[in-house]
Amino acid sequence: MTRLRFAVLGGTGKEGSGLALRWAAAGHEVTLGSRELDKAGRAAAELNTTLGQNSVRGMVNRDAAAQAEVVVMAVPYAAHASTLESVRDVVQGKVFVDVTVPLDPANVRRVKMPAAGSASLEAQQLLGETVRVVAAFQNISAEHLKSLGREIDCDVLVCGNNSDAKNLVIELAQAAHMRAWDAGPIENAQVVEGLTSVLINLNIKHKVKASGIRITGIQRS
Amino acid sequence: MTRLRFAVLGGTGKEGSGLALRWAAAGHEVTLGSRELDKAGRAAAELNTTLGQNSVRGMVNRDAAAQAEVVVMAVPYAAHASTLESVRDVVQGKVFVDVTVPLDPANVRRVKMPAAGSASLEAQQLLGETVRVVAAFQNISAEHLKSLGREIDCDVLVCGNNSDAKNLVIELAQAAHMRAWDAGPIENAQVVEGLTSVLINLNIKHKVKASGIRITGIQRS
Repeated sequence: MTRLRFAVLGGTGKEGSGLALRWAAAGHEVTLGSRELDKAGRAAAELNTTLGQNSVRGMVNRDAAAQAEVVVMAVPYAAHASTLESVRDVVQGKVFVDVTVPLDPANVRRVKMPAAGSASLEAQQLLGETVRVVAAFQNISAEHLKSLGREIDCDVLVCGNNSDAKNLVIELAQAAHMRAWDAGPIENAQVVEGLTSVLINLNIKHKVKASGIRITGIQRS
Repeated sequence: MTRLRFAVLGGTGKEGSGLALRWAAAGHEVTLGSRELDKAGRAAAELNTTLGQNSVRGMVNRDAAAQAEVVVMAVPYAAHASTLESVRDVVQGKVFVDVTVPLDPANVRRVKMPAAGSASLEAQQLLGETVRVVAAFQNISAEHLKSLGREIDCDVLVCGNNSDAKNLVIELAQAAHMRAWDAGPIENAQVVEGLTSVLINLNIKHKVKASGIRITGIQRS
């Protein structure tokens, strides 16, 4: 696929930096976003060391989003609404990939969706209909992402209301060596976000770091 | 495991009769429940023909539930509340397995949970706290269940607030040759119920009859 300009907001966190690492390794132009410029710069420098090349940059979230073609957001749920507000005007017309999971700090093993139905439905409502919000990657353990050579034994379920945007995200998942599926409209993201709590529950119970899911029963070329 | 007395309410439907078939084949005592006695009797006779033995009986839902140790319900969502009402007093203190998926007739590919949060949360509320409601089997295609010899390439996610009841259901899944996992409290059933819409979406898109999911990343004996 063509080289794309990415922003990964919340890119200093484990999940965001893991995704950024894989896209940078696939040859995309990646900018990490953070609330603090210094923090973004340090995280970018770390990724560049891992990559052995000087390709990832750090910016504050808003600047990172403004210069990007595709904006990915992986922030703790507590920072979800405020981060969306801070970038709303600079992401209009863009593909916006929400990786956020609305975990309940009181019990991360129990599914508790926000009143809007899910984090990505909140994003769609807050950003407006001209932003093509796609929900994806919520179930991929950061543990998996950081080992570049490792096959990721977890499928990506991709939800959204714009098919072109979903197809782009499916390609982006493939570029990062993951298998991805169109999981339906944005309303279905509540399932994918909630599945993260089910997997956390399994991780704790079975003392593993990265349980995942695979779709079965479909042959694909 | 010991031989158990099962009722499968809505046992004349595809999903219910598929589960009944597998438990009868595993040596359990199974009664199909239906709103109409005749219909239950005919469906039981069909299963007995498939099994080559005369072990499955048919009763009206309430009678089937009354005589059972474990009550399983697999009805269309439109009949969910009324079926629960009809058996409430005879399932007190029992394990009640809700297989119901609240599909939206307007669009079965889009997740739409009822106001209570999920079908099984509605069941728990309607039946009361002394009934050990367990949500399970919603993602298992009836297509898979009816072929007795066939390995089911889909895991069962089991949700509920009572660990003993969940462990029993995990054993029951294993007796029917399925792999099952404790997926957390009853609140997590919204994920499992909603996943059915995601799988229906995949079935339609990829022209298959029985997509499913598998949990990965956990070694089990």
